[in-house]
Amino acid sequence: MMKVSLGAKNCLYPMPTTLIGANINGQANYITMAHVGMANPACIFLSMNKRHYTNAGIKEAGAFSVNIPSVDLVDVTDYCGLVSGKDVDKASLFETFYGRLGAPMIRECLINMECQLVQTIDFRQHEIFIGEIVETFCDEACLTDGVVDFSKVNPILFVMNDRSYWKLAERFARAWSVGKDLRT
Amino acid sequence: MMKVSLGAKNCLYPMPTTLIGANINGQANYITMAHVGMANPACIFLSMNKRHYTNAGIKEAGAFSVNIPSVDLVDVTDYCGLVSGKDVDKASLFETFYGRLGAPMIRECLINMECQLVQTIDFRQHEIFIGEIVETFCDEACLTDGVVDFSKVNPILFVMNDRSYWKLAERFARAWSVGKDLRT
Repeated sequence: MMKVSLGAKNCLYPMPTTLIGANINGQANYITMAHVGMANPACIFLSMNKRHYTNAGIKEAGAFSVNIPSVDLVDVTDYCGLVSGKDVDKASLFETFYGRLGAPMIRECLINMECQLVQTIDFRQHEIFIGEIVETFCDEACLTDGVVDFSKVNPILFVMNDRSYWKLAERFARAWSVGKDLRT
Repeated sequence: MMKVSLGAKNCLYPMPTTLIGANINGQANYITMAHVGMANPACIFLSMNKRHYTNAGIKEAGAFSVNIPSVDLVDVTDYCGLVSGKDVDKASLFETFYGRLGAPMIRECLINMECQLVQTIDFRQHEIFIGEIVETFCDEACLTDGVVDFSKVNPILFVMNDRSYWKLAERFARAWSVGKDLRT
């Protein structure tokens, strides 16, 4: 098979679409983000363009939340990436609840993680926020035998290349297991 | 719906499973990683436990590759996360090719990104490597109208919670678009 060059093209997708919550000037706000990931197994890293309204709130409060919307919330999730909290009260779209850090969380999202900001990295036009997960909430309906079941979460997966949202299909193999037979 | 607390539980999944390539002591090596993400739209962020054999190679060469395996490569992908390049020649499992940075890439993976290391962040037991994508290769077979089509890539999605690999389903909505009607 011939390889073709696409130039310097970012193809690390799909990524889970999240709604990031923070208080800004005493007001709950949410912004759509898919450039999130794990900085280690206990900490979430979040890459946010410095022009976003939310950045100042995260730095001021030292906390943010990561909320995982399901596919039925795709309209409102997309909308939260189209408008700025500077202009629009996006918190009015949801029912907000709080944990112990004071970062607003979205009741309609099946999974909510409260994160304490532990490091901020200045990275060109972006700030990278690293937050330690201090508490995770979920709706009981998304658990199977006490474990979060992503077929029940039904997350919105983001692909930049076609600027689209995708669905998750089924589990098909066990990690740290399916490759064991090659170990000879 | 009642919320339940799971403690400090990482639920930011699924993540794309990748094979990270680096030369170590003049030898190509690959390691399975899903804790990867975008540090900004041009740079990949990679969180690697310091005990991995690959870290020294990335730092020495100042380069790594990100290779995206398809579901048919799940056995060998899982295997590359089970054994260390210290003990096993994992490069012999694949056909390796090179671009301009000297980081080994896997021909059997439909997408390959060459990354130049631009920053290393010491983060507790982990090192966070930030690499700028300098060139991306793909098999022509995974393009639709010149755009990478993830239904053709058929990536392996990783979920830590159930320690499993999942498949990607279909595209269902347009980003920066499906929420526009809420803008009134």
